[in-house]
Amino acid sequence: MPHVLHRAEIVAVGSEMLTPDRSDTNSLFITSRLNELGVQVAAKAVVADHAGTLTSVVRGALDRADLVVLTGGLGPTDDDLTRQAVAAVLGRRLVEDSAILDAIRERFERRGLVMPEINRRQAEVIEGAEVLANAFGTAPGQFIDLGDRALALLPGPPREMRPMLEALLAAQLAARSGGDRLFRGTVRLVGRTESHAEERLKPFYERWAAAEPIVSATILAARAQIELQLWARAADAVRGQTAIAAAIADVAGEFGDDVVSTDGRSLEQTVGDLLRDRGLRLALAESCTGGLVTSRLTDVAGSSDYIERAIVAYSNQAKIDWLGVPERVIAAHGAVSEDVALAMAEGVRRLSGVQVGVAVTGIAGPGGGTETKPVGTVCFAVVGPGEAHLVRTANVPGNRTQVKSFSSTLAIDMVRRAVARI
Amino acid sequence: MPHVLHRAEIVAVGSEMLTPDRSDTNSLFITSRLNELGVQVAAKAVVADHAGTLTSVVRGALDRADLVVLTGGLGPTDDDLTRQAVAAVLGRRLVEDSAILDAIRERFERRGLVMPEINRRQAEVIEGAEVLANAFGTAPGQFIDLGDRALALLPGPPREMRPMLEALLAAQLAARSGGDRLFRGTVRLVGRTESHAEERLKPFYERWAAAEPIVSATILAARAQIELQLWARAADAVRGQTAIAAAIADVAGEFGDDVVSTDGRSLEQTVGDLLRDRGLRLALAESCTGGLVTSRLTDVAGSSDYIERAIVAYSNQAKIDWLGVPERVIAAHGAVSEDVALAMAEGVRRLSGVQVGVAVTGIAGPGGGTETKPVGTVCFAVVGPGEAHLVRTANVPGNRTQVKSFSSTLAIDMVRRAVARI
Repeated sequence: MPHVLHRAEIVAVGSEMLTPDRSDTNSLFITSRLNELGVQVAAKAVVADHAGTLTSVVRGALDRADLVVLTGGLGPTDDDLTRQAVAAVLGRRLVEDSAILDAIRERFERRGLVMPEINRRQAEVIEGAEVLANAFGTAPGQFIDLGDRALALLPGPPREMRPMLEALLAAQLAARSGGDRLFRGTVRLVGRTESHAEERLKPFYERWAAAEPIVSATILAARAQIELQLWARAADAVRGQTAIAAAIADVAGEFGDDVVSTDGRSLEQTVGDLLRDRGLRLALAESCTGGLVTSRLTDVAGSSDYIERAIVAYSNQAKIDWLGVPERVIAAHGAVSEDVALAMAEGVRRLSGVQVGVAVTGIAGPGGGTETKPVGTVCFAVVGPGEAHLVRTANVPGNRTQVKSFSSTLAIDMVRRAVARI
Repeated sequence: MPHVLHRAEIVAVGSEMLTPDRSDTNSLFITSRLNELGVQVAAKAVVADHAGTLTSVVRGALDRADLVVLTGGLGPTDDDLTRQAVAAVLGRRLVEDSAILDAIRERFERRGLVMPEINRRQAEVIEGAEVLANAFGTAPGQFIDLGDRALALLPGPPREMRPMLEALLAAQLAARSGGDRLFRGTVRLVGRTESHAEERLKPFYERWAAAEPIVSATILAARAQIELQLWARAADAVRGQTAIAAAIADVAGEFGDDVVSTDGRSLEQTVGDLLRDRGLRLALAESCTGGLVTSRLTDVAGSSDYIERAIVAYSNQAKIDWLGVPERVIAAHGAVSEDVALAMAEGVRRLSGVQVGVAVTGIAGPGGGTETKPVGTVCFAVVGPGEAHLVRTANVPGNRTQVKSFSSTLAIDMVRRAVARI
């Protein structure tokens, strides 16, 4: 049986993360995933692109921890020192891997480019390391098993690091975590503040903590969405899955319509699936959100099945010309009003020949606020067949990008609520 | 003359900062204040409340850096180990300071409380340390001058740490900074891969490293953009600023049109300023980017000055109906073609009555690719007055969201290049 890993240290490599306004966020994700396997993080470091410092930090971490996870410093430049530093600490050579070299060359060729000579360096592998494929970038990762200890070298960009870590956890690390498996569930909510949700969840937390297996929960709030992550550790799959399913049922019962999904799907995916299932197409009219609602909905693969078109009508003239909003409605109620939102949604629906129209108009700031309509005042409308009409005004907190982001969530969620009635 | 401090490391102590959702933010503030004194931060760590780990991390930091700043772990509980760990590393005793003890007692008494016995521990001072008064809490800080190196022990709560650091900087550290200050510059580029840029920059790096003052550089790449951060240490403001300005001029000369800004402005801001300066308004026609180009441009405050409207024409019908793209052009060349991009840009420009139109059409994937037009094929067009016409096709790497993100940068950058000619 392999040595069970207990204590990890995380080392993020890169001078750019040592400036006053940058942080290493990779370590949060890595901590979360390691904790779930029962591995504690005892320390983490951010280190400049400086060979002596990096070597010393890695040596220290390897003295103390049985798992060292490094991120960053795998690029092709002189500043990218992670491979050399780890090789130096282990007293091992770096060997060029021709398969990796070919893959990097091909990656450049696919874009019509010749691989620059310096990228050769990314094909260097520490002797005895296992190569971790990188589906989203040139730099492969490396995993080095020392028996009683292990090191992982992962790339810095989160979109490359995360899938590589997931694969590493599933393959090399799961076997080293002691026998229990982790079971997870996710409930997404829109329409509650974090503290309100927390208050309603408290009695459940207590009940789950007393259950066997224990169900633990973390609440995350972002962009007006709440994500409740649930997990339980159990050796037995049926017991683990049952505990998670029961906890999900508790939350779903408590929050009703505010529950977006209980199966991990994002809000955008959930809305897309609702539209597709009902054979409906959506058209959008955005003002203050500046295209963000449409951009988020079209992040979902296959969204061309149900997204027909959108207008970003930033000026009043665009609202009149392209959405058929009557000039007198703007004059009477102002461009930021439920009447204008409704006229925009009706206009874009009619002119696009689709079943569902949604509109957002508001004041993203920092300018443009008034006493009666301060920055953050945002009006929404959804129009669809039958009873599927919703209009509302929200006071959205934060700065310009926060108002855009928060409002885009509320708009997408209104589509969800309206379409669910159809 | 005292030894000048150059390289600092920061150690944040506390298991609570090693959870998946907490970060150490003290280090950002400390970094900013140290940089202003010309002290670079070479590494930083977050360490659990574990004596062995903490001692080892502090020993490593003190081996490498000439200034070690610790935050946290100065409380009264068994978990607060910073004093003991530093004393152990230095081989010095901890001595109870009666003046501190009295001050802590008094602090409790002022609130009508009796000092709990465990708080005695906060009166323990490392032999030879200078005590740093804490105006906002019970735990005093400590400063230990080792001649060629120094350590500072500061409390964890920011409201206690910050004023203590300011006092420390003004008194003990200002004299140790050699009078140097840090000068910074930023150059943003679009249109180069990181490795190509690096290859072209290499001769400059060598020249800057040999100059006086030395100019150092870090290169960051994201979303098809490159950010080059430059810094120099100098006692004299004119020399420092001149060195940075000369390095910026080197880069600007080398990269020409690919330089977006040399003053820290983002690509979106730069394009906005160009449009506003020329009194031009922009309309957008997006297909595969799904509104992301417009959303990014409207993240800039005041963008309603120059963003008129946008169409997200996801379906062919929308391109025909709303942008006036001739059906035969789509039939002849396909929706993803330079001809269609050009027709979209001309259509949105004409129908919106603005001076500049931009269009993007491409295959974001994962579906929709063909042999001749694989996923990531994206066509762009900008049309404006006079010579300001640009059309191109790019092969954009990555998954769906990466294609959207990368393409949106290229589209915004094409507007920049076209408008710069007007």
